[in-house]
Amino acid sequence: MTPLTNDRFLRALQREPVDMTPVWMMRQAGRYLPEYRETRARAKDFLTLCQTPELACEVTLQPLARFKLDAAILFSDILTIPEAMGLGLYFSEGEGPCFERPVRTKAQIDNLSVPDPNDALRYVMDAVSLIRRELDGKVPLIGFSGSPWTLATYMVEGGTTKNFRRVKGLMFEQPQAMHTLLDTLAQAVIAYLNAQIAAGAQAVMIFDTWGGILTTRDYLAFSLHYMQQIVEGLTRKHEGQRVPVILFTKDGNEWLEDLAATGCDAVGLDWKRPIGKARERVGDKVALQGNMDPCVLHASPERIREEVATILASFGNGNGHVFNLGHGIHPEVDPEHVSAFVDAVHALSPPYHVSPL
Amino acid sequence: MTPLTNDRFLRALQREPVDMTPVWMMRQAGRYLPEYRETRARAKDFLTLCQTPELACEVTLQPLARFKLDAAILFSDILTIPEAMGLGLYFSEGEGPCFERPVRTKAQIDNLSVPDPNDALRYVMDAVSLIRRELDGKVPLIGFSGSPWTLATYMVEGGTTKNFRRVKGLMFEQPQAMHTLLDTLAQAVIAYLNAQIAAGAQAVMIFDTWGGILTTRDYLAFSLHYMQQIVEGLTRKHEGQRVPVILFTKDGNEWLEDLAATGCDAVGLDWKRPIGKARERVGDKVALQGNMDPCVLHASPERIREEVATILASFGNGNGHVFNLGHGIHPEVDPEHVSAFVDAVHALSPPYHVSPL
Repeated sequence: MTPLTNDRFLRALQREPVDMTPVWMMRQAGRYLPEYRETRARAKDFLTLCQTPELACEVTLQPLARFKLDAAILFSDILTIPEAMGLGLYFSEGEGPCFERPVRTKAQIDNLSVPDPNDALRYVMDAVSLIRRELDGKVPLIGFSGSPWTLATYMVEGGTTKNFRRVKGLMFEQPQAMHTLLDTLAQAVIAYLNAQIAAGAQAVMIFDTWGGILTTRDYLAFSLHYMQQIVEGLTRKHEGQRVPVILFTKDGNEWLEDLAATGCDAVGLDWKRPIGKARERVGDKVALQGNMDPCVLHASPERIREEVATILASFGNGNGHVFNLGHGIHPEVDPEHVSAFVDAVHALSPPYHVSPL
Repeated sequence: MTPLTNDRFLRALQREPVDMTPVWMMRQAGRYLPEYRETRARAKDFLTLCQTPELACEVTLQPLARFKLDAAILFSDILTIPEAMGLGLYFSEGEGPCFERPVRTKAQIDNLSVPDPNDALRYVMDAVSLIRRELDGKVPLIGFSGSPWTLATYMVEGGTTKNFRRVKGLMFEQPQAMHTLLDTLAQAVIAYLNAQIAAGAQAVMIFDTWGGILTTRDYLAFSLHYMQQIVEGLTRKHEGQRVPVILFTKDGNEWLEDLAATGCDAVGLDWKRPIGKARERVGDKVALQGNMDPCVLHASPERIREEVATILASFGNGNGHVFNLGHGIHPEVDPEHVSAFVDAVHALSPPYHVSPL
């Protein structure tokens, strides 16, 4: 494989010195880009876009052609694992992802098996290999998966939900069945991410979108525990390089120390709390990724630069910061504002990386 | 006015000794009750239900006839103030509350005026007086309002929103206009709650439903600052009794100390963090209200009792706990489970209130 021209992102994740703070955006390959909407229109539907490696590669690379981003992230869906388990994923207009065959009983849970990532999820591995080839060492490629708890919420609810009563009902009434489900999912995620790493992913991120709706006790037992299992089960070195792992629990600020103690390399932050306070709490245990409010991208370029400056100052001097939004970029954002954002991170961050004499 | 037969709720809010922990539920007058659905069907629409004092009184009292709750809460909508300001509130099926005339420019903001609560909001005061009369001293009546920031989000967005980009856009780009709007709303909330107190509300609660989507800096400046103004502007004594104030910022656990420092009597908690940890943080500064996950009410009565026991033990011995859910009760809950919940709080809490010899 071609050596990396720009390894700022991987270095920052390992808290090594960099010349400037690396930056990427969650959902950077997405609807705010006209070229994405054009590719999306060519695909039969969203699932086809995810399942066709050439198209997934095309949209993955689109934001890199426009902006000086320091990482690419695989374009895929968060629910590929349950789809490969046979739940029948489909997308209904206005309702988001749904499953034809949700999993709600102990018998249904016992019937699930861990999908072979090189069989049912082959299309993801093909996309990863293709993207790596096309990137040609420009920037590193991030692979990802949903967390077991997050996958379980969709699998039990059968789609998106406002109050999570089915999945929490199962958790409260049949905790052992829920643990069986989460254990199967943890094994599936380990196999899936290790296959992505083997195919060329240079860092991996676990999205725990719904861990933040749990009580502390339930979060530790039903979400974090399984993310820890995954961290322990991952291939951490490939092609002679460390493969860093990023954990991100939305609304999980309260559990920062617990996340940092899993052995992951970095923790993703939402925008709600200052990154400087988070840094005080984790010390040099992990790198931090975040944390600009995605709404700031609707403001003027001047206001965006101001906010970037505030966040850089909040993190302060030294290593271990990957700049990102605290959540995915909104579809309505003007791409010109994204340029202003990415350029501001690179322009304003070098003073924070000058090594002391 | 008839003296209170049961003043456990007011005593707990002031951290005075009680025989057992008082309990009520957010949205206790709501769709999970068949008798509520029956009254709702008789009203032309939801707004008519809120604006007809006899109907509002009827649904306010319904849960008290079934369960041994220690407080009643005025049945009303959170958006009565903007409605009285002339924004044209309506409810669209599946979309929730909407405004015909949202407020998005400085000119529109400058045009707003503080509604006279005894004129445009007379129906609320009439409902409060009627409920007080009908309660006849059985339990205290809670009045309430949305927080200025929460009202502003609906007024600027024109309804519910997923990403708050309009209201945050205004906040980022025209902070002074946003402060003008919030200042007008704070004055309106003060007048509104003081009128509710004059009409008979014995405690008041401010619901800050959307403060939790802000960064810490913005939360302090755009939400908490105005709640503090309200706390300072409220009539705190009426009919010779203290009128306690409860502040509740959904997803606001991070700012507990800041909330407690406003001078309020109690802080409402969502279910995400243990109440014992919250108590350690606020000491004897304020009472705490909460914090069972509303999803637990879908579980069996045994499981509900177990969770009540856990929360009582987490709070521990002594004064200053009002039991509640961490969010409104779901429409799908079986009323039998609510009985189990309320009875469990009363049955299991007395040991925590035995005074030391």
